[in-house]
Amino acid sequence: MSSPRASKRVLVTMGDLCGIGPEIAAMALGSPPPGLGAQLCVVGDAAVMRRAMGWACVHRPLLHLSSLQELDALPPHCVAVWQPEGLPAGLLDCKVGQIDAKAGAAAALCIEAAVRAIQAGAADALVTAPIHKEALHAAGVDFPGHTEMLQALAAAGGVAAPVRMMLANNELRTVLVTIHCSLRKAIELVNFDSVLETLRIAHRAMLSFGIQAPRIAVAGLNPHAGEGGLFGDEEVLHISPAIAQARVEGIAASGPFAPDTVFMRARNAAEHAGEFDVVVAMTHDHGLIPVKYLGVEQGVNVTLGLPFVRTSPDHGTAFDLAGSGRADPASLGAALRMACQLLP
Amino acid sequence: MSSPRASKRVLVTMGDLCGIGPEIAAMALGSPPPGLGAQLCVVGDAAVMRRAMGWACVHRPLLHLSSLQELDALPPHCVAVWQPEGLPAGLLDCKVGQIDAKAGAAAALCIEAAVRAIQAGAADALVTAPIHKEALHAAGVDFPGHTEMLQALAAAGGVAAPVRMMLANNELRTVLVTIHCSLRKAIELVNFDSVLETLRIAHRAMLSFGIQAPRIAVAGLNPHAGEGGLFGDEEVLHISPAIAQARVEGIAASGPFAPDTVFMRARNAAEHAGEFDVVVAMTHDHGLIPVKYLGVEQGVNVTLGLPFVRTSPDHGTAFDLAGSGRADPASLGAALRMACQLLP
Repeated sequence: MSSPRASKRVLVTMGDLCGIGPEIAAMALGSPPPGLGAQLCVVGDAAVMRRAMGWACVHRPLLHLSSLQELDALPPHCVAVWQPEGLPAGLLDCKVGQIDAKAGAAAALCIEAAVRAIQAGAADALVTAPIHKEALHAAGVDFPGHTEMLQALAAAGGVAAPVRMMLANNELRTVLVTIHCSLRKAIELVNFDSVLETLRIAHRAMLSFGIQAPRIAVAGLNPHAGEGGLFGDEEVLHISPAIAQARVEGIAASGPFAPDTVFMRARNAAEHAGEFDVVVAMTHDHGLIPVKYLGVEQGVNVTLGLPFVRTSPDHGTAFDLAGSGRADPASLGAALRMACQLLP
Repeated sequence: MSSPRASKRVLVTMGDLCGIGPEIAAMALGSPPPGLGAQLCVVGDAAVMRRAMGWACVHRPLLHLSSLQELDALPPHCVAVWQPEGLPAGLLDCKVGQIDAKAGAAAALCIEAAVRAIQAGAADALVTAPIHKEALHAAGVDFPGHTEMLQALAAAGGVAAPVRMMLANNELRTVLVTIHCSLRKAIELVNFDSVLETLRIAHRAMLSFGIQAPRIAVAGLNPHAGEGGLFGDEEVLHISPAIAQARVEGIAASGPFAPDTVFMRARNAAEHAGEFDVVVAMTHDHGLIPVKYLGVEQGVNVTLGLPFVRTSPDHGTAFDLAGSGRADPASLGAALRMACQLLP
């Protein structure tokens, strides 16, 4: 996938069109963060994007691309939209703010088309606007989230690598061992292999972020990290052995630490120097509660382990705001910035 | 337990003497928060407290009480210590910073004596310095924490009421359905009754804090609060029915909400008005991660449902700091303030 192109290309999928995705994509591409050093393009429906630009008061020309090649000669200050083949007709009829199978199908098709374009070398990175899992489900697309879908698409493209979700803001990075499943199932999925794989992925990711000798904290699964076995044995049976093996491999992992204080310890703020560069968390909410606590505006979701760069905002479709033009594109802007920073 | 006494009395147990408990108690009583309107007294070993005052540079007289009655004529600017009968001899030989069964036994005895004094009407509220669960365990005291021990002591005193742990700081209050057990066990303990009881206790507590018509948010157990049943069914089977019943009883409970964003929504800060007065969380770490994220200095643990007021700092024994005089008494000071605010 070496690129002889003059500039890098970042694709932004429009997400579920019944949510805020098209609007925040319009705003972010209408006024992109400065200094990205890449060409941006929405992968979505041109009519949907035109409507969203109206709602969001984005007064820029919409450039409907027939091919991604046209990005090399993109005029400034326009919103480029590449409409993949096969999008359902009549998308403007989908009722904004509601679950719609057609919107779910369109969102999935845009993601698939974007990944194929990247796999074919026609683009370099993917930034995804929010999808709605129930709409995907209604469309017969049974992935619980972007992360799992992208892993499957990468595997279909010949790269069957384990992936992990990372959430990051200016203060804290967390990488999750388990994500979109019941808490009961998550406990079953915490084992030596899944924890060790997460540590390896987190370590490589921190190196790719330019952090030398990254300090990785591992949060336990149970209260007080099991309190020496009194409150559960997953730390003793699975997590500690995985940390020990990671250390043998030269990864500076430590823990398991009590989940309730390790994120506080890792938090890196003006008045508080973080003790760690990243925290590996066993469950979706152990990791996401602290990243989101101070607000989702700066939070970015990064999929680690894929053969290409992928980021997204760390909020959802916000059906209640869709169509109002009041959604905040800050997290999508942060996701664009991080995607460009991570481009090889 | 009506009190004809001139002033309220707040007992402060010294905690595990191998940790920072005696030092922070010495500092907090040596320079108590202003305007408490109550007399303070350490329940602990006088020699241990004298040593701790030296470490913490608390230059006040230590007043070794023979009876709590003496608190009514307490001279100003001294640290009152009531040494309960039966404390083990040679406590100064316990090695600071290490688990010691004798220290665990002494900590448990002080808590029991303090509760009996309150039950007998000789004092009004309890503030506990941190204990170490493994030291308790080594002493044959098999409670996973203060909360469970206090519930058992209250039951032994004739008041067998369910209790819940609340954590609060200036921005956020959370009340926990489950606390000191494995995550696996916690999932089993989430049911209609346990959630409903927690909602009733949280509601009464908020009223006692002077909040009229308290707004209670309920966090789900599973990622995305179960995503409509895709990621677990505890929300559908147990949590939502309990919320519905609470609403029938006039409690303004809402949810279940996705755990990863509900604490952010409830956070009440200068730049962010909280949407809720309290969040009910299903697990120890869902509730404690956000309360502790910005630092434990202002966090207070309150046991709800006991027949008396009980608060504590929201940090542990900090064995690594014990004996250094560098521990921060801020959270204990906040616990003292909250205990005095809650006195009837």
